[in-house]
Amino acid sequence: MIENRSYSRYRLEYKQRNGVTMTIKRIQTGPRMSQAVIHNKTVYLAGQVAPGASVAIQTREILTAIDALLAEAKTDKSRLLMATIWLTDMGTFAEMNGVWQSWVVPGETPARATVMSSHLASAEFKIEIAVVAAQP
Amino acid sequence: MIENRSYSRYRLEYKQRNGVTMTIKRIQTGPRMSQAVIHNKTVYLAGQVAPGASVAIQTREILTAIDALLAEAKTDKSRLLMATIWLTDMGTFAEMNGVWQSWVVPGETPARATVMSSHLASAEFKIEIAVVAAQP
Amino acid sequence: MIENRSYSRYRLEYKQRNGVTMTIKRIQTGPRMSQAVIHNKTVYLAGQVAPGASVAIQTREILTAIDALLAEAKTDKSRLLMATIWLTDMGTFAEMNGVWQSWVVPGETPARATVMSSHLASAEFKIEIAVVAAQP
Repeated sequence: MIENRSYSRYRLEYKQRNGVTMTIKRIQTGPRMSQAVIHNKTVYLAGQVAPGASVAIQTREILTAIDALLAEAKTDKSRLLMATIWLTDMGTFAEMNGVWQSWVVPGETPARATVMSSHLASAEFKIEIAVVAAQP
Repeated sequence: MIENRSYSRYRLEYKQRNGVTMTIKRIQTGPRMSQAVIHNKTVYLAGQVAPGASVAIQTREILTAIDALLAEAKTDKSRLLMATIWLTDMGTFAEMNGVWQSWVVPGETPARATVMSSHLASAEFKIEIAVVAAQP
Repeated sequence: MIENRSYSRYRLEYKQRNGVTMTIKRIQTGPRMSQAVIHNKTVYLAGQVAPGASVAIQTREILTAIDALLAEAKTDKSRLLMATIWLTDMGTFAEMNGVWQSWVVPGETPARATVMSSHLASAEFKIEIAVVAAQP
């Protein structure tokens, strides 16, 4: 009897988990894109850009926006899986890295690829960052 | 007894689901790449390109190809998770967006990053789109 | 009684699997990035670059590094899901493809996007490859 009750509860948990796993959750959904999409405990963030006079300033703004989106997705930067970084000028690689390294959680850094995109959506943008993270 | 039968059926479903989850399914597999790969209910599409006189025309062709691949993968554009768009000329951003916005399902837009690739696999291509989607 | 024992064992397996699924495992974790991150049986590799006099040589080095990282992640190139390839010169597309095609497992090719990044992290690098793979 106890086993059966425990099993029923277990089956319910499985179905709930299952429901969560298969559901897609979208955050800040606009006509073109959502700022974040969650599926199967994996969080995909849209590429983030921000105005600012330098790559360092833009990077800081972008990482703050990423923190906020990860929080909305019920996770945080300690659970980053992959980051793709586009720079308009590879000469700003070190400047970006300085801000990046002071932001990531030591021991919990994501896989990463940093490449060039000579232009981004607007001429003012010098860097764009897209990340994939896990929910706890 | 009913509980036990129900449990056996449940265990079977779990194993089947499990089998599905761990399997990799590939669609239109060639010597270089597959056009789609499915794992863990997540569908990865190869970057799509198409000939055409303008970015608008190429975008339409690409999105039609994506629709067909998603159908082969037993899903559709309402379940897009992430899109990466490469343009050879960022000046065509608005032209691409016009076609894109009339294609995506309102309220179900994916995360997205749009960046530049000054050349694509062939000189005729002005845009390439890769998407990740979920199976229902 | 047998059913109950079997159920308990099953529940344990489920919890263990669950534990595995939700855990993030990082490989070769540095202050900036990890070379690989595993979550939910999905392995994200950092973009790989390698020195070498030609695109063919660099590609071979990169694919050897990818083999080693996939082995550390307890998987291999037969389970690739998606590859993103950045070339600094699209004129090397065929040269890269020659090496790529002799490396991938026939019938098990990943989805793939090949685009341009006019510069990579260091001027010597002509190609960068990032892959996503599945664990068995």
